[in-house]
This record gives sequence, structure tokens and C-alpha cells, in this order.
Amino acid sequence: MSQAKSYAALSATTPLVPFSFERRALREDDVNIDILYCGVCHSDIHIAESDWGPSEYPVVPGHEIIGRVMAVGNKVSQYKVGDIVGVGCMVDSCQHCSHCAADLEQYCQDGPVGTYGAHDLIDGTLTYGGYSDHIVVREKFVLTIPSVLNISKAAPLLCAGITTYSPLRHHGVKAGDKVGILGMGGLGHMGVKFAKALGAEVTIFTRSESKVAEAKKQGADHVIVSTDEAQMQAAAFQFDYLLDTIPVQHDLNPYLNCLKVDGTHILVGLIEPMNPPVHSANLVIKRRVLTGSLIGGIAETQEMLDFCAQHDIECDAEMISIQDINQAYQRLKQGNVKYRFIIDMQSLKNLK
Amino acid sequence: MSQAKSYAALSATTPLVPFSFERRALREDDVNIDILYCGVCHSDIHIAESDWGPSEYPVVPGHEIIGRVMAVGNKVSQYKVGDIVGVGCMVDSCQHCSHCAADLEQYCQDGPVGTYGAHDLIDGTLTYGGYSDHIVVREKFVLTIPSVLNISKAAPLLCAGITTYSPLRHHGVKAGDKVGILGMGGLGHMGVKFAKALGAEVTIFTRSESKVAEAKKQGADHVIVSTDEAQMQAAAFQFDYLLDTIPVQHDLNPYLNCLKVDGTHILVGLIEPMNPPVHSANLVIKRRVLTGSLIGGIAETQEMLDFCAQHDIECDAEMISIQDINQAYQRLKQGNVKYRFIIDMQSLKNLK
Repeated sequence: MSQAKSYAALSATTPLVPFSFERRALREDDVNIDILYCGVCHSDIHIAESDWGPSEYPVVPGHEIIGRVMAVGNKVSQYKVGDIVGVGCMVDSCQHCSHCAADLEQYCQDGPVGTYGAHDLIDGTLTYGGYSDHIVVREKFVLTIPSVLNISKAAPLLCAGITTYSPLRHHGVKAGDKVGILGMGGLGHMGVKFAKALGAEVTIFTRSESKVAEAKKQGADHVIVSTDEAQMQAAAFQFDYLLDTIPVQHDLNPYLNCLKVDGTHILVGLIEPMNPPVHSANLVIKRRVLTGSLIGGIAETQEMLDFCAQHDIECDAEMISIQDINQAYQRLKQGNVKYRFIIDMQSLKNLK
Repeated sequence: MSQAKSYAALSATTPLVPFSFERRALREDDVNIDILYCGVCHSDIHIAESDWGPSEYPVVPGHEIIGRVMAVGNKVSQYKVGDIVGVGCMVDSCQHCSHCAADLEQYCQDGPVGTYGAHDLIDGTLTYGGYSDHIVVREKFVLTIPSVLNISKAAPLLCAGITTYSPLRHHGVKAGDKVGILGMGGLGHMGVKFAKALGAEVTIFTRSESKVAEAKKQGADHVIVSTDEAQMQAAAFQFDYLLDTIPVQHDLNPYLNCLKVDGTHILVGLIEPMNPPVHSANLVIKRRVLTGSLIGGIAETQEMLDFCAQHDIECDAEMISIQDINQAYQRLKQGNVKYRFIIDMQSLKNLK
């Protein structure tokens, strides 16, 4: 066992505060990681504030973790002390169902074990995430961070990155495809980078005329202001794929109308309250597809990290100290960040 | 030009009545068909009663047509006088868009020309459907009825048949797949036959315990009473495909929950009022697909007819006279038919 420093939510309505707890002793297939950086995901807020049903407290959020290996169990073969590694949204899964066997641990029949707010499969203890100074994770769920990546910008790849990469790859997005990215936050801006790197012609849909210049700066080939009916009408039947990262309730029908025959609208958010009803005609008349996607498997996450290294992709982020986390949550709720907060965990280690 | 007898709706609120009109003179690529049988589709009622927006009257419904070739234009090569042929939901399309080129005329960029209630692409006249003694149709949109099919049972294949066959084929349903059929009307009962012939393990979902025996008689391997929560819970994560033929508003969420990871829920109905909202979690958490499908292309319709001949598939139907059409509409609205009405068009020809 080892004493861990962290920041935790002790209830749904109180700010995050410093919190100490014990990390488990190293198992033979565990890696002990000194956390260097941790991204701030909107899910962190949802769980800390019990937006998705009552959470078990204390909640130590954080599932975009970059760190350095401090120790390894005696059966660990893939990592050694000093390696720069990552941990994403999952730290374990059953390992015997058909989905785990197919490298789709995120769809594990028993549900994957979340990096925080879940229960360890062996000892049943509550998992605590990356807003902490170190973490102990089963080797199988640890990722290699390619050496060419800027480690101070890599953390959000572990959630925002894989969440957008996985559906683009699963659906086979390729050169020449017309891809629309809905929403321009932490996920959306990564979606643009991946779709461009895959050779697609990329359009950002944004609600606000004021964001058009910023969207182009993100590398989009085109920008459509979704509140402008004329622009939306001109976009009818134009897109092969829409990657929908909008985190709040929105009407899908005007977007579906922008898809070609056999076009695919991919949701990555768990939207509450629910989006309004979809006209069945919008699916039937053009054989369109509405689907969803949940993060990505471990092997695919590694593939994504290697893809980022190869294509020089990193997250646009603002570095903060752990002491600023509650203010960062407020700004994130307002959409006031370009495009992700990353906590420099040195700030936690410096705490007395 | 040739005088045609028919039954037509002259307004949204009046019953169908005998109606005479002129069929166009034969063009060089036209086939003139003596109509022997015409199926009664729920769409006939929707258009006759302006349920999908104001229809142009008179409406002569009918797009499940079986007949005998009476004459052919001088450039027709595929059909000769005496051939038994079929006509489905479309009688023309642009023939130059990418969808027409891909044998997907139903998704023609300009919209296909409906067998009734649409406008001919050449002379602009209103199209009149199969509740008539004969019809003139472009050769390309005429189907060959295999000689082994019982022509008195084949008419519904042209809409109910292709509407259920096309999505099962498009999504690659194969031996061993678990397929659920939602709804047990004209479309649903054909879906069961096709899914069985493709080798799937087929379950009918029905709202009523009283329909279980009938569902098994239809050839379903299993029946689930969808109003029984315990049965629906037991079906969670079990299905590869759900073919949803329910013609009225219904909540998709309990059905989506029955799909495996990557499972597909296929809508074939234009549902008004709209189905309630879908939880994005039901799509995201298991990467499920919600999609639609519209009839099928001409080549695929021919493939379906040949498949029916090969697998001895026919529609279960009740034969009526054209004089009974208004009563048949009432019964169809009540779901009181096993499983399709077919009009014996001799009854129209006998009219004085």
C-alpha cells in the first residue's frame, strides 16, 4: 500500500478538495505510475456532481493520465521503470467475454472497470483516478506514449482523442470522404485533426458566426453556421459522416438531413436530457445510419497514440495547477477553454 | 391513349369510388400490362387520406401489381405479349444520378417516380396505380415473375416483400444470426419468411400474448411478448438485428436494449407522430446502429422475386373484390387481416 495525494469531490455539491488515500500494493501484473499530467474531461464533472445518477464518494476524477513508471510487478513484461506511459478511461475488464477477446474492452459484457468511480475486480475497492500523484494499474490497460509526442499535450488523447479516433476508424473514414464535425470543444477539435489526417474533407458545424475564424484555424476546410437555415439547406445530402460531439441536448434532424444516402451520424455523448425525437423518414428515405461510439479498446488506443506520433497530432490545451480545478470546472461548463485543460501534477506534489 | 377503369379517392375524406381515366399511349420503351392482381398496402390508405401531407387527387392507389403483358413498345427487348410481370412502388427515376447507376433507384437524387400520386418525368401527368384494369410502365421498372410463383399470392412481394428483403440483404443477415421481427402484419410476416430462408434464428416481438400461437405458425423460432417486462429483460443484448415493421408510434428504447454490441435496428416505416426520443446511451454504450430502409432497387426486387421462387416463399393473403376496398381499408386500419389483402382485378373488369 502507498499513501496517495489527490483532489476529490466528497459530495455532489461541494468543490474538489485535497484528499489522501491508499493505493493498493503492486500486484504481479501491475504498473505503478508517477502521474505527470492529467486532462480534465467533462465526464469528470458529470461524475463528481452525480449528473449520471448518484456517484460513490469520494470521487477522485481523471482518466487522461500521462506518467512515468515508478515500479512494476514481477510478471510485467511490457514496461520498465522510467517509461512514459498513459492510462485512459478503463483500468480493467473481464478479459474473457467475446468483446474483450476482440480488443473491445470498452464493450465488455460486464462493463469495463472505470479509472475512477468503479470497483476493482479483485478486491472490490473504489477506483480513484488521475487527479492524484500516482496510480497503480494492470499492465494490460497501460499505454505506451511514443517518444516523439509532447507529453505535456498528450493527456487528452487518452479520452478526447480515442473517443473521436475510434468511430472514424471503425466506419472506415478515408481520403475524399466528406466529414462534418459537430461541436468544437475538447472532442470536436480532436475530431477535426483525425479526420484531416485520414484525408477527409472536413467541415465544422458551429452554432455561432463568431467561431468561424477559430474553426478554420483548427484546420477545417469549411465551416457551417448551424443556426443559419440557408447554410444548412445548402448542406443537404452532402456528407458521408457526421461526428457529433455536442455535449448538450440538440435536434438531430437538421443534421441528419445533411447526410447523403447511407451517410452515418455518430454520437459520442451521453446526452441528458435526451435529444428530441428523430423523424423516421430522415433515416428511411435515404437509408441513413444513426449510431454511437464509446471511447475505444486498448489496442486501438495504442494505435491512436502511434497515429498521433506519425501525423504530428496533439491536443490544444491550457495547463493549470490542481489548485485551479474548481475554477476550471466552471469555465468548462461555460465552454470557455481552448480546448482542454491539463493539470500539471507537479502542483499537487508541491502541496504541503 | 387508352381508357382505364379504376377505383380512386377523389378527396381525403371520401371513400374510393369507380373512376375512369386515360392511360398514356405506348412509348417505345413502355410495356402495357393487363392487371390481374393488386395488393393493398397501408401506404395506399396514407396517400388516399393525405396522412403524409396533401395528396393530389384523384388518387388511384396500388403499387403491388401483378399482370400480363398486352403490348410492348418497339424498343422493348425484355418482355413480350403474354409474359407475367410485376410492378412495384416505382415506375421511373432520373437514371443518371449515382444512386440510379448503383441500382438504388429508390434513393434517386430527384426522388423516384411513385407508381401513383407522382408525376411522369416526360409528360408531367399524374401517375395512377394498380387499382385499375391496366397500366403502362417503362420496361426498366417492370419485373419478371418467376413461373413457379403462385401469381395470386405474389403481388405483395412488390412492396411488403422487397421492403423487408432489402434491409436483411443490405446488412448481410446470414445463417446463425439472431433476428427479431417487430410487428406481425403484411411486412412483418414477410420479414419472418425471408430471415428464416437466410438461415437466421428468428424471434417475433408482439404486444399481445394472444398472438403467440399465430407467430409460431408463421415460422418464428421464438416469440417475445413485448409488453412483458421480464421477457424483454431476458432478451437484453441478444439480437444482431431488429427489423421494425411497427406502423405506429412506439418507444424504440426497450427494443434497442435487446441488441448486442454493434447490433442494428432497422426502421422501414414512416412513423407519424414521431417515435419518442432515443436515449443516446442506448446507441453509444454498445455501439448500436439505428437505421432505415426504403423498399429496394429494381435489380434487387428481381433478385427477391427469384429468391422467393427458389425458397418457395409467398405472401399470406386474403383475396377481395375491388368493391370491398373501403371495407378492407377499415379492417387494415384495425390490423384485422392475415396478412395482406389482394384485389382480384377481374372484379373491376366485370364492372359495367
